[in-house]
Amino acid sequence: MAVGEVGFDFCVVAGARMVSTPCGIKSGGAHDLVMFEFAEGSVTAAVYTKNLFAAAPVNVGRSHLQQTSPRYFLINSGNANAATGDEGIADSLTCCKSLSQLAGVRTEEVIPFSTGVIGERLPVSRITDALQDMLPHLSESNWLEAARGIMTTDTRPKIVSRQTEILGEKITITGIAKGSGMIQPNMATMLSYIATDALLSQQTVQDMLVKATARSFNRITVDSDTSTNDSCMLTATGASGVDIDKEPSAGGVFYEALEELMIELAQGIIRDAEGATKFVEVRVINGSVEKDCLNIAYAIANSPLMKTAIFASDANWGRIVMAIGKADADIDVSKLDVYIGDVQLMSKGGKASDYEESMGANAMSGEEISITVDLNAGDFSETVWTSDLSHEYVRINAEYRT
Amino acid sequence: MAVGEVGFDFCVVAGARMVSTPCGIKSGGAHDLVMFEFAEGSVTAAVYTKNLFAAAPVNVGRSHLQQTSPRYFLINSGNANAATGDEGIADSLTCCKSLSQLAGVRTEEVIPFSTGVIGERLPVSRITDALQDMLPHLSESNWLEAARGIMTTDTRPKIVSRQTEILGEKITITGIAKGSGMIQPNMATMLSYIATDALLSQQTVQDMLVKATARSFNRITVDSDTSTNDSCMLTATGASGVDIDKEPSAGGVFYEALEELMIELAQGIIRDAEGATKFVEVRVINGSVEKDCLNIAYAIANSPLMKTAIFASDANWGRIVMAIGKADADIDVSKLDVYIGDVQLMSKGGKASDYEESMGANAMSGEEISITVDLNAGDFSETVWTSDLSHEYVRINAEYRT
Repeated sequence: MAVGEVGFDFCVVAGARMVSTPCGIKSGGAHDLVMFEFAEGSVTAAVYTKNLFAAAPVNVGRSHLQQTSPRYFLINSGNANAATGDEGIADSLTCCKSLSQLAGVRTEEVIPFSTGVIGERLPVSRITDALQDMLPHLSESNWLEAARGIMTTDTRPKIVSRQTEILGEKITITGIAKGSGMIQPNMATMLSYIATDALLSQQTVQDMLVKATARSFNRITVDSDTSTNDSCMLTATGASGVDIDKEPSAGGVFYEALEELMIELAQGIIRDAEGATKFVEVRVINGSVEKDCLNIAYAIANSPLMKTAIFASDANWGRIVMAIGKADADIDVSKLDVYIGDVQLMSKGGKASDYEESMGANAMSGEEISITVDLNAGDFSETVWTSDLSHEYVRINAEYRT
Repeated sequence: MAVGEVGFDFCVVAGARMVSTPCGIKSGGAHDLVMFEFAEGSVTAAVYTKNLFAAAPVNVGRSHLQQTSPRYFLINSGNANAATGDEGIADSLTCCKSLSQLAGVRTEEVIPFSTGVIGERLPVSRITDALQDMLPHLSESNWLEAARGIMTTDTRPKIVSRQTEILGEKITITGIAKGSGMIQPNMATMLSYIATDALLSQQTVQDMLVKATARSFNRITVDSDTSTNDSCMLTATGASGVDIDKEPSAGGVFYEALEELMIELAQGIIRDAEGATKFVEVRVINGSVEKDCLNIAYAIANSPLMKTAIFASDANWGRIVMAIGKADADIDVSKLDVYIGDVQLMSKGGKASDYEESMGANAMSGEEISITVDLNAGDFSETVWTSDLSHEYVRINAEYRT
C-alpha cells in the first residue's frame, strides 16, 4: 500500500560509487548490505537521531566523523544493532575494521549504519564475509540498487535527483532514503544518503544539511515514534569542480535544489508510510511564533482520531478543533480559519456559514489531502506531512516480529 | 470489546438524587439526558478540560460555579456543544434557565454538561421539553441509570462506591464516569460525577478533587487526544453530618477512599477504551524527578508502535527502548531495568542475560499487562494506565460519523 506513483529515475554523481548485496540478515535472499565509496577529498555532513537510546552504529559513526572525512559507508538492513550495549559497539567496529583493511583505508574512514529489529546482536560474520565480493562491483550507477538494499518495511525505494546550473556549469545532487514506520525524525529520518559532485567546504555542507533537514525530514510524522537509528548524510565529492563557496549566489541556488530534493525524499517516506492510503499536508499559517505553528501542525498530524477520520475520508472538523485545542500553543481560537483543500470548514473559530458536509466529503475523497489552519495572528508558518491511520498500519505493526 | 469483568453495585448517597431519560438526541431511543439534584447546603468542586476549545457548557459551568453552589447538574450525551461559538453558549444557558424555572432555583445554580459530536448546534427544545417529566422521577437510587445515560461510545457504565468509617460514623462516596476514546484528560476525564454524604468545606472538596484527579483521571490515556468537554465534579451533600474538616485524621481517611474510587473509575474508562483488548499499567519508578517518570510513562503509553505490539501480545522490548529514548527526560540509559510483569527484559540498559523470548511472550499473554521501567536514580515514581491499539480502535473511529 502506498500513495501515488513515484519515479525511479536518477542521475549519477561523479565521485560516488555504491553496491548492494544479500548477506543473509534478511530472510529470502533480499538485499540487506549496501556500501558507498566516495572519492578522496570528499566532505561529509551528518545529522543523527536524538533518541537517548542511539544505536551502536550512530555512536561509532559520530566518533569517526569527528576524526576524519569518510571514504566508505557500510549499511545493513534487517538488524538495528540498537540497545546492544558495548557488544553492539564492538560488533559495529569489527565491520568497519574489516572493510577498512580490504579497502586500504583507516577504520575511522568507514561510517557504519544499521536499520531493522532493535535489541538483537548484529550477525557480524555474515557482513564481513560479504565485503570482499562487494568491492569490485562498486559503480556510479548502482543508486537504485542501494535504495532497495536499505529498505525494511518500505514497499518501494525512494530516490530523487536534481540537476542545476551554477556558475555556468551543471551540478548534480542525488539522494536515497528509507523509512516507513517509527517515523517522527528528530534531527534526521531513519536513513538517507545524499551525494553531490559540487565542491563545498565541510562547514557549508554541514550548515546546509542541518537547515534542509529541518525543512524536510524533521517535518514528517507517521506515528510520532522516533527511531534509534535515524541518520542523514550529505557528501560533496567536488568532482564537478564547481566551487559553491566561491560565489555568494551559488550557495542559494545549490541550497534550493538540495532542499527540494530532501523534501521530495521526506514526502516519499510518507507516501510509503506503513498502511498509508492518504498523503496529508498540514499547514499552519500566520502564527505569531514558529513554535505555535509547529505544535499545532504536529498535534493534528499525530492525533490518532484525526488520522482515523482521514482514513475514513471523513471531514470530521470536530477532531481538528480538538487537536488544535490540545496543542501547546498560545492562540486566540476566535480568530481561527480552517480549510481542507479549498473548502473552508471554520471561520473565526466556528463552523463556516456556507459549509456543508458534502463539501468536506468531496475535499477528503482523494489520496492527497491538504489541511490549512490560519491563525490570523502573525507572519510565521509551518508545514508537516503525515499519513492516515489504517487497519493496515495496525496489521503491519502487530505482526512485525511474528 | 472491553477488558475484564466489572461490577455495577453501588451505594446511595443521602442528599444526591438523579434521573435519566431519552430525549431524542441519540437515535434509537437511547437515554441521553441526565439530571442530578443536590440537597441545599451541598458544596461542589470542579476540574475542567484544558483544551483551548473548551465547550460552551464548560464555559457556562465555570461561570456559574464562581457565583454560587450548584443545586442541579444537567447532562446531555450525543452532542458536545463544542466549537459552537456564542450560539452554543446561548443554547446552554437556555437549558439551564428552563430547568431553573421548573425547579424554582436560580439559573446559576444549574451546571450544564454535554458530550458527543463536536461542532453541531444543541437540539435545545428536545432537552427543555423533557425536563418537566424528569423532576418527579428524581431518586437516590438512579445512579446506574445516570451512568448509562451519559455514555457515548462506552460499551458499559462505570460506577464505583466506597464506604468508610470516620469518627465512628459511616460515610459513603459514589461516582460514575463515561469515556472511551479522545482520552488523555488534562485536568479531568471526559465526564465524571462523584457525590458523598460527608460534610466538607468548599476549600477541602476542591483541594481533594484536584489532588485525586492528578492521581487518577490525569494518569490515563487511550489515544493521547484531549476532549473539549472533560469535566469532573465532586459534591459533598453533608447529609451524614460527619464533618471531615473537624478532625485532622478524618481528612486522610476520606481522601484515601476518594482516591481509590477515582482510580477505579479512571481504570474503568481504560478497561472499556475503544477497541481495547488489554489493560496496561505503565510504572516508571526510582526517577530523580517526577517529570522524567511521567514523560517516559506517557511516551510508552502513547506510542502507536508499543500499543500495536501489546495488541499482538508481542514483548517487543525494542519498542519500549525506542519509546523511553524519545521521551523528554534526562536519564542515564545504562542504569535502566525493564520488566513486563515479573519478567526482567532489560538490565542496565541492555537485554537481561537470562531473558528469553518465551518468557516475554508468556508475560504478555494475559489481558492485564504491567510494564515497569526502573530508572535506578532517585525516589520519584509515576503510574499511567492505557489500552492497546487494535483493529477495532481504527474501525470505531473511522466509522464514528458514518
